[in-house]
Amino acid sequence: MKSSTITVARTNAFVATFDVSPAETGSLDGLRFAVKDAIDVAGWKTGCGNPTWRDSHPPAVAHAVCVEQLLRAGARCVGKTICDELAFSLLGENHFYGTPLNPCAPDRVPGGSSSGSASAVACGLVDFALGTDTGGSTRVPASNCGVWGFRPSHGFVSLAGVNPLAPSFDTVGVLARNADLLANVGLVLLAGAQVPPKKPATIHLIREAFALADADVQTALSEPVRFLRDLFRERVQESSLCDLAADEVGSSFETWAETFCTIQWAEIKSCLGTWIADAKPEFGPDIAASFELTNQLDRRRVAGAVERREQYFRSLHDFLGPHDLLCIPTTPALATRKGDPPARSANSSGYYPRTLALTCIAGIGRLPQVSIPIAHVGGVPIGLSLLARHRQDAFLLEVAKSVEQVCG
Amino acid sequence: MKSSTITVARTNAFVATFDVSPAETGSLDGLRFAVKDAIDVAGWKTGCGNPTWRDSHPPAVAHAVCVEQLLRAGARCVGKTICDELAFSLLGENHFYGTPLNPCAPDRVPGGSSSGSASAVACGLVDFALGTDTGGSTRVPASNCGVWGFRPSHGFVSLAGVNPLAPSFDTVGVLARNADLLANVGLVLLAGAQVPPKKPATIHLIREAFALADADVQTALSEPVRFLRDLFRERVQESSLCDLAADEVGSSFETWAETFCTIQWAEIKSCLGTWIADAKPEFGPDIAASFELTNQLDRRRVAGAVERREQYFRSLHDFLGPHDLLCIPTTPALATRKGDPPARSANSSGYYPRTLALTCIAGIGRLPQVSIPIAHVGGVPIGLSLLARHRQDAFLLEVAKSVEQVCG
Repeated sequence: MKSSTITVARTNAFVATFDVSPAETGSLDGLRFAVKDAIDVAGWKTGCGNPTWRDSHPPAVAHAVCVEQLLRAGARCVGKTICDELAFSLLGENHFYGTPLNPCAPDRVPGGSSSGSASAVACGLVDFALGTDTGGSTRVPASNCGVWGFRPSHGFVSLAGVNPLAPSFDTVGVLARNADLLANVGLVLLAGAQVPPKKPATIHLIREAFALADADVQTALSEPVRFLRDLFRERVQESSLCDLAADEVGSSFETWAETFCTIQWAEIKSCLGTWIADAKPEFGPDIAASFELTNQLDRRRVAGAVERREQYFRSLHDFLGPHDLLCIPTTPALATRKGDPPARSANSSGYYPRTLALTCIAGIGRLPQVSIPIAHVGGVPIGLSLLARHRQDAFLLEVAKSVEQVCG
Repeated sequence: MKSSTITVARTNAFVATFDVSPAETGSLDGLRFAVKDAIDVAGWKTGCGNPTWRDSHPPAVAHAVCVEQLLRAGARCVGKTICDELAFSLLGENHFYGTPLNPCAPDRVPGGSSSGSASAVACGLVDFALGTDTGGSTRVPASNCGVWGFRPSHGFVSLAGVNPLAPSFDTVGVLARNADLLANVGLVLLAGAQVPPKKPATIHLIREAFALADADVQTALSEPVRFLRDLFRERVQESSLCDLAADEVGSSFETWAETFCTIQWAEIKSCLGTWIADAKPEFGPDIAASFELTNQLDRRRVAGAVERREQYFRSLHDFLGPHDLLCIPTTPALATRKGDPPARSANSSGYYPRTLALTCIAGIGRLPQVSIPIAHVGGVPIGLSLLARHRQDAFLLEVAKSVEQVCG
């Protein structure tokens, strides 16, 4: 299923292939990467998955700073990948450009919005790829496609040259075929020093997060969880969302997800609403419905949501020691089948509310998260996630490597 | 010199006056504020101080999230203020829209880029105003105009609806006529809990920062520094830049400023370069020269600069305890005279390199900073600044209030 057997065309992962040489040699020498088409590569249009956006914006005159960092570390940039329109989806089915191949489950979606980046890595066309992650756009496709995914701590990887969606949550994410690579690329972007490997103090399995998952996902993840228990023994313990939350209200994932969505939708409208009202772009039906949500939001609720977000952020920061981790399923359900998109605005048992309930923890907490491709249900991949304290990215990436060494 | 005697027209602080009513009642009831014209107010164009930008962008369809927060806390928005073109200047002389009045020193510039916001507060036309601060754009005009200025910790006030300049440093700043107001507005934006007043542990007077200042500024600040010593006694001590820096190289402000400028210029080009290449806007001569710097930058230097930035960030974070402060002059020189702009690219004794050497500390360290309007030279204001550890904004704002209570 690797590059020898899957052609670039068949994956439909790329909007463009090219060759930008490394600027210097470094820790990423000899590696090839692709860039989500929401991130600038000099000389190429950043299309953001939408033809109107593409047609109304000129080619980028400079690389995004994150791309510059990778080229300077020795990596070679070989193309830009398809993404969901304006990065506002978790599915990976683009109405205009099609659906990048999920090679492990060709009848299912790759996940979005960094769909092509995940597909390109999963199909073995590149060593790693850049995505963005606001509400799960790197972690969800990593889980769906069975590759490693990393969302860094918010505010520590440059967003210059990356199309803004919701700045309070926007991050640049990494997808890679193994944990070593994930860590190396992550450290280049974070420009941080490597840390000596250190065992986690406590790994908190968040009870409500596992309970939220479908039965088949729970079953599939029980073995990796047992594996973590074998590896880290009594350091692994069950904890409750109540322990992370500042108040009674916060002890329900619904409140967390609602807090996240209120801010995200408000910010999306503030960032993109003016362009949408002016350019009147054509959107695919699902994306149109998603943007309609941002219009329906009562913006008087925004300030209260920002307050709750900061309250939960502080609770998480106080709860987590520097070497503690949270463990949750990356997504509560397997990748959905192609051509059958779940409704965006649904009751709490729908795909989006349940998925966001899990992905919003890192968003609200500004936490780094790694999705580990460690399980599957009948061949369909599902990720297990570890999250660390804000700014403990290097530690988290080291733990991810140690997990891979033992289970790989 | 207050609103009774200075008309809106004479100040030239505003690009537009209007009336947006509070959305609810709250801690800012009865207060009037203005918004820098780089921040969205629904229904109004965000002009960013440049006519081409203004003409090529439609009116904003939504308030920026920060504006929403203030309206929801009870404040009334009364206008948008002139700023330097695309927020890329520290002077406050706009080639197209003129120079907002610096009421304490009418023959001198107000400072930029949040020039009109500082002027509107200094002239008593509003209670407080929003600015932005990437490299000093709130702190410098606060110092020049003799008002309080606050730059928050990077990454903790929403930037949705705020025009990006250099995302790794961009913040929303506050200008206010007293410290109480500054703290109230700051806490609304940060959505943080108030903290009980607490005395600083150590206030580090950074020796090299004072040495960098002109003789008249040093003399003018000696009394406020003596005042801090009286107030906080042996907690005030002299420290050296060497104590803050991770390495030998970092013990010179030139390295800090160069690190800051390399990243800032790269990010500005990544954020605005494509628009500039496409729209070919007319710029005033100084701004054109500034943008030319972003074109001349050797972008292979960017990755190394990001590494040094993170190294200095960590040194600062490790050096500063949760209740420690740094104390520096806000600017090393008085506001320059109108019509005599200093060269942007000059040797290290020029206005820009010296000013950025001081303002870049908060930028590189992601630190919150308050500029206190506590001194003047022959009537021309000069600010003294306190900086706290990353995320210690509420503590810093409480200290600012205690300083005002004693000296006010």
